[in-house]
Amino acid sequence: MLEAYKNQTSSEAVVRPVPVLEVFGPTVQGEGMVIGRKTMFVRTAGCDYRCSWCDSAFTWDGSAKDSIALLSPEDIWEELYRLGGERFDHVTISGGNPALLPQLGSLVDLLHSRGITVALETQGSRWQPWLSDIDEITLSPKPPSSRMDTDWNILDDVVSRLSAREPGRSFSLKVVVFDDRDLSYAKTVHERYPNVPFYIQAGNPDVSTTNQTAHVADLLLRYEQLIEAVMASDRLNDVRVLPQLHTLVWSNKRGV
Amino acid sequence: MLEAYKNQTSSEAVVRPVPVLEVFGPTVQGEGMVIGRKTMFVRTAGCDYRCSWCDSAFTWDGSAKDSIALLSPEDIWEELYRLGGERFDHVTISGGNPALLPQLGSLVDLLHSRGITVALETQGSRWQPWLSDIDEITLSPKPPSSRMDTDWNILDDVVSRLSAREPGRSFSLKVVVFDDRDLSYAKTVHERYPNVPFYIQAGNPDVSTTNQTAHVADLLLRYEQLIEAVMASDRLNDVRVLPQLHTLVWSNKRGV
Repeated sequence: MLEAYKNQTSSEAVVRPVPVLEVFGPTVQGEGMVIGRKTMFVRTAGCDYRCSWCDSAFTWDGSAKDSIALLSPEDIWEELYRLGGERFDHVTISGGNPALLPQLGSLVDLLHSRGITVALETQGSRWQPWLSDIDEITLSPKPPSSRMDTDWNILDDVVSRLSAREPGRSFSLKVVVFDDRDLSYAKTVHERYPNVPFYIQAGNPDVSTTNQTAHVADLLLRYEQLIEAVMASDRLNDVRVLPQLHTLVWSNKRGV
Repeated sequence: MLEAYKNQTSSEAVVRPVPVLEVFGPTVQGEGMVIGRKTMFVRTAGCDYRCSWCDSAFTWDGSAKDSIALLSPEDIWEELYRLGGERFDHVTISGGNPALLPQLGSLVDLLHSRGITVALETQGSRWQPWLSDIDEITLSPKPPSSRMDTDWNILDDVVSRLSAREPGRSFSLKVVVFDDRDLSYAKTVHERYPNVPFYIQAGNPDVSTTNQTAHVADLLLRYEQLIEAVMASDRLNDVRVLPQLHTLVWSNKRGV
């Protein structure tokens, strides 16, 4: 669907274009603080992480590099409107790590000027000034099973800056959990930032299977086991434990 | 588990006891505005409605009348603490319709004095002064498939009173949808109260099956169809569409 824009540079010479891999929706946000919310998705290319279980590795492993479209904020709005018409008022910017892109501020401003609520997902490894303007930010530092290391100084700084924003802009922390070490990491994060709304999410261990029935059964079993582990802990009380709804409904299908 | 308290009257003569059918947890809240939240449940007996598809009909159809325990707030706290110890900081009061019970204010006060966040679910057919003190209220007016009629004057009044509460206390509207007429009803509710956070929930059409695999497949299909219907509408934008997580994980099992 982005064919028309592929390799097209922005007509607004003053704004650096945004590398975009997917624009889709309207659909539901499947996870985290705005779970269930009707939203459009804009998925940017590029990530500073290489998580072992990444469900969007095509954003950084080179496999989709020929599909990256360089779009101006106006281009992105046109594509959003072409797909969603009057049937959305919320856009989620995801990646990859969209916080790598200093030029995203123009998109955020344009969306706000159209009355759109803007959500964003990032691991909290980079700060950008325009993060101050995002309505709903999910910070998802990565647990040991990802094989990534958390830079706590940077995460402290990002949390501190987000905590100082005006009321009405919200953010949360979300940790994906695959095993006991990940759950320990989740406790560490929650105890380091006890006043930040905290979400624990069951991981998806197989991001390529097409056997939906078996996949859903496995995901629900893992979610149940995660619930049991959290319920047994007195260090995880003010928390929410969630699955990925889109994976339960659509398994590993992309663009939904 | 409530055997010890059965038919026991409160030792606090000044407080009318609360008719309780279940105390359980900690578990996750499976639906609505605090979906995924670690919580304990207190389920009160009695309802002014008789919804055709009620998943807790034992609270009003007489089938569990011998299991109703008359508990003081202190009794309820003891039972919560016996089950949950230090592993919870959130209690959800559900029913039946707990808003039938003027005496619940004492329980809310006691829970708050223990540092507990209190959530409550009601259809919005009755006002009680203590509703002003509940941290998170889900109002769930019932759609046509329930065969109940909404008293809009009362619901207007309840929404108005809840809207006037101090910041930090939140409430939402939730409509369960089984069919197209229910979806039309949901649109009516959302448009009548456009500033109230709005949740649309896929109904559970079989509250007695024990075939969990088939049940979950049916629930996920219904959830997907509900998503598609909401995505196609330009009258349902600022909404969240959710399943019941506990039903996906535990089907119709009680007490989880």
